[in-house]
Amino acid sequence: MSTPQLVPVRRALLSVSDKTGLIDLGRRLADKGIELLSTGGSAKALREAGIAVTDVADVTGFPEIMDGRVKTLHPKVHGGLLGRRGTDDAVMAELGIAPIDLLVLNLYPFEQTVAKPACTLEDAIENIDIGGPAMLRSAAKNWNDVGVLTSPEQYESALAEIEQHGGLSRTTRFKLAVAAFNNVASYDGAISDYLSGLELNETQDAITAHAAFPGQVNGRFVKLMDLRYGENPHQQAAFYRDLYPAPGTLATFRQLQGKELSFNNIADADAAWECVRSFTKPACVIVKHANPCGVAVSLDGIGKAYDLAYQTDPTSAFGGIIAFNREVDGATARAIVERQFVEVVLAPGYANEALKAFAKKGNVRVLVIPLPDDGSLLHAHPGNNSKRVGSGLLIQSADLGMVGAEDLKIVTRRAPTEAQIHDLIFAWKVAKFVKSNAIVYARDRQTIGIGAGQMSRVYSAKIAGIKAADEKLEVRGSVMASDAFFPFRDGIDAAAAAGISAVIQPGGSMRDSEVIAAADEHDMAMVFTGMRHFRH
Amino acid sequence: MSTPQLVPVRRALLSVSDKTGLIDLGRRLADKGIELLSTGGSAKALREAGIAVTDVADVTGFPEIMDGRVKTLHPKVHGGLLGRRGTDDAVMAELGIAPIDLLVLNLYPFEQTVAKPACTLEDAIENIDIGGPAMLRSAAKNWNDVGVLTSPEQYESALAEIEQHGGLSRTTRFKLAVAAFNNVASYDGAISDYLSGLELNETQDAITAHAAFPGQVNGRFVKLMDLRYGENPHQQAAFYRDLYPAPGTLATFRQLQGKELSFNNIADADAAWECVRSFTKPACVIVKHANPCGVAVSLDGIGKAYDLAYQTDPTSAFGGIIAFNREVDGATARAIVERQFVEVVLAPGYANEALKAFAKKGNVRVLVIPLPDDGSLLHAHPGNNSKRVGSGLLIQSADLGMVGAEDLKIVTRRAPTEAQIHDLIFAWKVAKFVKSNAIVYARDRQTIGIGAGQMSRVYSAKIAGIKAADEKLEVRGSVMASDAFFPFRDGIDAAAAAGISAVIQPGGSMRDSEVIAAADEHDMAMVFTGMRHFRH
Repeated sequence: MSTPQLVPVRRALLSVSDKTGLIDLGRRLADKGIELLSTGGSAKALREAGIAVTDVADVTGFPEIMDGRVKTLHPKVHGGLLGRRGTDDAVMAELGIAPIDLLVLNLYPFEQTVAKPACTLEDAIENIDIGGPAMLRSAAKNWNDVGVLTSPEQYESALAEIEQHGGLSRTTRFKLAVAAFNNVASYDGAISDYLSGLELNETQDAITAHAAFPGQVNGRFVKLMDLRYGENPHQQAAFYRDLYPAPGTLATFRQLQGKELSFNNIADADAAWECVRSFTKPACVIVKHANPCGVAVSLDGIGKAYDLAYQTDPTSAFGGIIAFNREVDGATARAIVERQFVEVVLAPGYANEALKAFAKKGNVRVLVIPLPDDGSLLHAHPGNNSKRVGSGLLIQSADLGMVGAEDLKIVTRRAPTEAQIHDLIFAWKVAKFVKSNAIVYARDRQTIGIGAGQMSRVYSAKIAGIKAADEKLEVRGSVMASDAFFPFRDGIDAAAAAGISAVIQPGGSMRDSEVIAAADEHDMAMVFTGMRHFRH
Repeated sequence: MSTPQLVPVRRALLSVSDKTGLIDLGRRLADKGIELLSTGGSAKALREAGIAVTDVADVTGFPEIMDGRVKTLHPKVHGGLLGRRGTDDAVMAELGIAPIDLLVLNLYPFEQTVAKPACTLEDAIENIDIGGPAMLRSAAKNWNDVGVLTSPEQYESALAEIEQHGGLSRTTRFKLAVAAFNNVASYDGAISDYLSGLELNETQDAITAHAAFPGQVNGRFVKLMDLRYGENPHQQAAFYRDLYPAPGTLATFRQLQGKELSFNNIADADAAWECVRSFTKPACVIVKHANPCGVAVSLDGIGKAYDLAYQTDPTSAFGGIIAFNREVDGATARAIVERQFVEVVLAPGYANEALKAFAKKGNVRVLVIPLPDDGSLLHAHPGNNSKRVGSGLLIQSADLGMVGAEDLKIVTRRAPTEAQIHDLIFAWKVAKFVKSNAIVYARDRQTIGIGAGQMSRVYSAKIAGIKAADEKLEVRGSVMASDAFFPFRDGIDAAAAAGISAVIQPGGSMRDSEVIAAADEHDMAMVFTGMRHFRH
């Protein structure tokens, strides 16, 4: 049996930093009569396993020099990788260049080199591999004639093909070449990120410190899936993951059931997940159109939290995304599917009973986000975030700001009660995830009204009040959170009229004294956080 | 006079795809007694200019083979670039490796290769340079001893340093090395983007087409500026530009005066700019908190358009971002600075009188976005956009969907008048840039009320009505645009109650017939676009 456009493998060069699977690979290639070339540690490991290898130095006739800086950068190696079979045969024969049909080479990830706390600039530079990427690029360029393996995960299927057919097919060689160029791009991107992030002190002619943001950033994202369409049906879209995703973040999800995820599902799921994992007690967050439309925390568990979150705005909850920060039990899952249409459910886990309940609504997308090793969702770091603007990119550190009761500055005559402090901090955490200008009314750790996305703050306050009234939720005794300071007293007056009894906000307005006086007039308690949470 | 840690340049290797400045560089290096090595076209050009050069093949003692695939991949070249002065001197002397102190090499941008319509996979692969990146990486790794020039823009200052001091300083060498690694990362990123975007037809063992989104994307962004902080003061941030920005996009801005741009300024400026350049007639867009808070088109010019846009919501316009699609005249600039506090003004140009008016308010950030070569803002392509989610990235094609009068499907008994059609299309264009759910009331190409960012559509409709009433703008006779279909008739009923006479929306709801019946009941005209414009 023969495969079309197959290239037989007769000679392979093995040079790996990750020795996983090397011996098995070497033995099975040798068993097929393939001649093995190798260097340094790989050659040593193969020989110790009793596998015959030729040193690259014997091929080049040139010694390995400069502590290994120069060993494979030689025409006998690169000619062997780059020579076009059929076209360059004569010159190869004349110059004694033997073809290399398979390159097995992997690079030690540069990110890991520079992540070591003791890594100096000198260490980083010394770890930059010159010969390896050059060989990868030569082999991948000549994919018509050469196969290139860059990861132990590729060995088994490549070996199976070689053992069955004596070589690799055209599609296999192309896929491997693409993987090699991806690998080199990631490697060089990491070097560029690191080096262009170093700052020079020109007067001292010295390199001093790491800048917050490098001069060039090289995003490296791997496609997880094509999406049916983007934010709208006339836009094309795909979902990518960081090369090294942080544990506990959305991109580490597994889908347990349900329809294909859409662009808007994923965006909303991220907002829901980031919000729900900011709570330590059992919590539920329902998101619609990028905004929480209901949030609650309950010491009675996530079932109760879901009931309360749903009450805030049942109309918006229809077709929403529901996230939990605890394993979902059967009763909660049944309550959801019996009560409402839901697009996506997210949680760190599901009881079997819950999965059974969701299975009855096969379209519901059920996602699990595995917990990080320390079991804590709270500290999973989402990394930098970015915002695309016309031919540009705004990059910022994630908004990880948190405030606790000890950070609150009481600015009114009346101090909040302990129950109000719980509610104020709850409302504050929710406001952080509502699009600005954001106003959140809350009572007993349940959202009562959410005013989102307005161009002036007073309208957000009005909307929160209107929504609470429309859902017949009692505002009296509730607290209010504002993601940024009140520029005028009108927002406080509106809140007081609605029945708000305590307020949390950053403070910092030119008219703070006027705003505080308004709160005092209404006999409200007000605390300042000193921290703003715009989210656009 | 000597510079600390200076490395004298005695031997240079020149191999460039862009020949700009090559002869001047070669001559001035030769005049300093520096020995020149070169290859191919660069060697030929230098010789024709009467400058003495040594061929690399004479250094390696190895011929250039395989149509140039292998010429510099040789230990005599790489040893000369990588050898550590002081450490490797003995081995270099023994093996006849002469140090190369300066590498001048630039790569033909791979993006340009594959942008050519006739470029086949074979062409693309053949254009992948192996020797060039290998030399760049060797020289940059050995920056302690070697200088590397990757762009003609670097020649003059490097020559000045060499002519004055005989060599390059430590900080110069480091900066050049970083630029070289950035260059290589960009080059390899472009190759990875291209190749991982090709699709395989495995049954035919063939590579058939380009996928919409590559398997790996390698963003390549160059820092334009560090920002004082991010969306909030406790977040760090920076602004980057695409390696190849599209003409007419925000990232091509020049700032003519004013304070430093903030993260939120840039994000809002982008929204304002993208919105205003979707109009062909003179237009003004005012943005606050990522939403247009006033938009108008006027055949009387941008001054009138500004007046009308301002009227929609003067409270929100305070501290807003104002964008124009025409050169700003003196009268308009004076009207702005006399009337309101403004953070940023953007336009394709400014009359001198306008600049004088803005100069009186020195804090106002005045940005010019140069027009593309064809003079049209309308067709400047902003490229893909992306949305960051936890350790992931959603990428989608930009929302370039447009509808004209000919695309409208009249679904009610009453057809819109010609004036209404103008207003419907105006309102539709604005709704595209309002955060979803978006409702826009408009009359005579002026926004009358904008309902933004709500989790249910009916509240956006209510807010638009409340805002119009608060500003005492007459809704009667206005039209309404909705960025997505109405799921229920309630939004139409609310609009009719407010005085709306015509509606534009995508259609496509399960309850379209109910919604159309509601419009007919109220004797409204309604048109469907068949196109949704969610924007979150």
